[in-house]
Amino acid sequence: MTMQKKRECLPVGNMAEYMEIDLKRNELKVEGNSCVTLAQTYGTPLFVISENMIRHNYREFYNAFRSRYPKEVVVCVGMKANYGLAVRRIIAQEGGGGDAFGEGELYVALLAGSDPNKIVLNGPNKPNEVLKAAVQSGVHINVDNPDELERLNQIAANLSKVANISLRIRLPLDALKGKMFADPRYPTGVDIAKWETEFKFGMEPASLFKALEQALRMKNVRLNGIMYHGGIPRRAEYYEEETQVFMDYVGQLKKEFNWEPETINLGGGFVQQRYGCQESPPSIDAYAETLTSTIKTKCKEYSLPIPNLFLEPGRWCWENAIIYLVRVGEIKEDSTLAHKKWVYVDGNTNHLTTSGGDPYMNYRHTMLANKPTAPLQEVADICGQLCNAQDILAHGREIPKVERGDLIAFLDVGAYCESTARQYNAVPRPASVLVNKNNVDIARERETIQDILSHERCPFWLM
Amino acid sequence: MTMQKKRECLPVGNMAEYMEIDLKRNELKVEGNSCVTLAQTYGTPLFVISENMIRHNYREFYNAFRSRYPKEVVVCVGMKANYGLAVRRIIAQEGGGGDAFGEGELYVALLAGSDPNKIVLNGPNKPNEVLKAAVQSGVHINVDNPDELERLNQIAANLSKVANISLRIRLPLDALKGKMFADPRYPTGVDIAKWETEFKFGMEPASLFKALEQALRMKNVRLNGIMYHGGIPRRAEYYEEETQVFMDYVGQLKKEFNWEPETINLGGGFVQQRYGCQESPPSIDAYAETLTSTIKTKCKEYSLPIPNLFLEPGRWCWENAIIYLVRVGEIKEDSTLAHKKWVYVDGNTNHLTTSGGDPYMNYRHTMLANKPTAPLQEVADICGQLCNAQDILAHGREIPKVERGDLIAFLDVGAYCESTARQYNAVPRPASVLVNKNNVDIARERETIQDILSHERCPFWLM
Repeated sequence: MTMQKKRECLPVGNMAEYMEIDLKRNELKVEGNSCVTLAQTYGTPLFVISENMIRHNYREFYNAFRSRYPKEVVVCVGMKANYGLAVRRIIAQEGGGGDAFGEGELYVALLAGSDPNKIVLNGPNKPNEVLKAAVQSGVHINVDNPDELERLNQIAANLSKVANISLRIRLPLDALKGKMFADPRYPTGVDIAKWETEFKFGMEPASLFKALEQALRMKNVRLNGIMYHGGIPRRAEYYEEETQVFMDYVGQLKKEFNWEPETINLGGGFVQQRYGCQESPPSIDAYAETLTSTIKTKCKEYSLPIPNLFLEPGRWCWENAIIYLVRVGEIKEDSTLAHKKWVYVDGNTNHLTTSGGDPYMNYRHTMLANKPTAPLQEVADICGQLCNAQDILAHGREIPKVERGDLIAFLDVGAYCESTARQYNAVPRPASVLVNKNNVDIARERETIQDILSHERCPFWLM
Repeated sequence: MTMQKKRECLPVGNMAEYMEIDLKRNELKVEGNSCVTLAQTYGTPLFVISENMIRHNYREFYNAFRSRYPKEVVVCVGMKANYGLAVRRIIAQEGGGGDAFGEGELYVALLAGSDPNKIVLNGPNKPNEVLKAAVQSGVHINVDNPDELERLNQIAANLSKVANISLRIRLPLDALKGKMFADPRYPTGVDIAKWETEFKFGMEPASLFKALEQALRMKNVRLNGIMYHGGIPRRAEYYEEETQVFMDYVGQLKKEFNWEPETINLGGGFVQQRYGCQESPPSIDAYAETLTSTIKTKCKEYSLPIPNLFLEPGRWCWENAIIYLVRVGEIKEDSTLAHKKWVYVDGNTNHLTTSGGDPYMNYRHTMLANKPTAPLQEVADICGQLCNAQDILAHGREIPKVERGDLIAFLDVGAYCESTARQYNAVPRPASVLVNKNNVDIARERETIQDILSHERCPFWLM
């Protein structure tokens, strides 16, 4: 049976063994579920989430660090990249936690069942009520500035609790001065060191040193650790350098205050090997090897006990675990003026933005879900229905010959697409279905026009 | 009383006579309503909509064309820039219509009470059910391609109705070859002529000529006119040239088919004189003078009767009619590393995107709503609470000295901000209040975390 299945199905794309082409039916399948059937049953546009791809990603990430590290590794999977209740539940079952920004994400992380000890609350401007919620629920708080530290101590005192905290540092990265980073989401001409320095999050060392001194004297906070998010340097492949600089500050804190962190948190910014637009980023094993060995070496140098390690990957767990299914409608060809072809689909860039928000910069692989083996024969812009010239899901893409009713799958849309989807042009947001080899169910219900209008009110004097 | 009021209040910003500084209380007021009181009553972040500014804008635009034009002028105010029910109701009361994309916008336009004869349905990929809705409600349909024309004729026949249509043209603009246009929302290095040619909307002339021939023979469509949206050339100030080219095609259609349009629709793309980022765009009178005289001249040249004129301004009516009120929370200063200051507010770039979506490119004037006369003393980044380094509402902005609890008003946020707002980081979207000199009421209710989670479902096998 297994052998026969292997002959009939080809694994494709970045979803590895969880996506395949059924050669007999010539259909794309996610964990054995036909995308043609899913589109018929649940409508389009549709997000299709592979449960086991998420589990696979989580385990790959966790094990890469766990296998190399003598102390606890806690993976706080970035809520911002996907805060869907069902996918968070999967992470909780795997033993993962969440990196929450604000009350909404904190609520979902807890609702999904993650251990509060594995949830961190981040953010540069936490209101008192959110700090209170975090203390009540016992999650870990990454303190962003000295004023927050004082408010938090007071709030915890009022609740007769002790808040579990880390201090977030903003690092001077002198070794990276002059190193540039090209990412369409960021302004050009700014070097990594300057970017990190002027970043809106965390405390510069002088401020952090003072805050640490204060925190150690406070009765209602328990200072667990130090947090640093290495997003840009990590993506730019300077993760060894930044980890060294970070650990040197940890060493300095030991010297000055004789304080040793129980945990360190190195944030996120890990690029997936499978991520479409980057040529050949490091493997997760390379990241893990460099980070863990740097920590171990530096701990030895500064006579520090190895701390527990918190990590906050965002994109990593999600990117390749979700596809976006859209149906072809109008097809337009112009052989006299522009000499080009447009294929219009019922999805749009409302659902395919990224954290940077520029749809021009996104590249995602496409497949024809209802005839995946069809040869590439044409070049077309795959366009959405929005009233914007920029609403193009794929520019000048080589595709098979398509006709009305065909299904196009956009791969690798798991990160940021659902969490940043908007209702521009009053277009309802899509449904999401969660699938595994034995089950299919809705994870997010499709919106209606009534949902979009649900908060609208016409004042009576206009009636 | 009036004189006394004048002495005590200064008009400010782009909202002209509808926004003022109350010098006695040192508060910003919108149509006499204190922003401090509005923020206390309705919370922050908050959109404050000036009813009379919208009416003023609409009338200014309408009258500029109406006073120069011998036939009917229909202003179909772009739904995409703001599809709020209350603001659409105001437009309907003024006698304006809407430019709707898809079912959602069409529904709101009708619900708000606009005359169906003044509503146009646009879009490159209209599903049959949306065409059906448009025929049922009797709105005007801008047909985007020949296939749509055939579907529409069939749908109207099934309903025993006649659909009111225009054909949308994609123009060769040879006169603009080599003319570049710098707009951060569009790719650089593409000239206007090429851009217009490859645009995803409308039919190139050869295709349009064929479609027109077909339409004239169809029983269930009534061909009213021709539509052309002059967005990019118009913003780039080549609106005379594009109108000439457009009218030359209308003249050619008369020659070839002896057909004369009852209406022409010239779309939108009118830049507001008051719009922050553009130095000195044409006045609406300059636009109106050029467009109407070009139409009249060309009608004379081609012996055409003057057609009714449809226009689809988007940004125009809204931009300066809405402000965004946010409250200062954390303030962070770094005098040892970055040497800069960050002021954090409870709003964020989820609510301040534009159609292009790049928050870096937006400039909006700010004022301290609770002490608007305070002198500018500092430079700071005004930051939101999102987990993104790009979540900065104003970069390096000169501001007065602020403290926790102060209210910052972002002016000119009326276009695209509410319609593109998203829930990234699970942050609920703000409320909007509509004000005039005598009334205040909610136009959009504030969201809650429960709203954000309302469509989430956790499949049972994960429970």
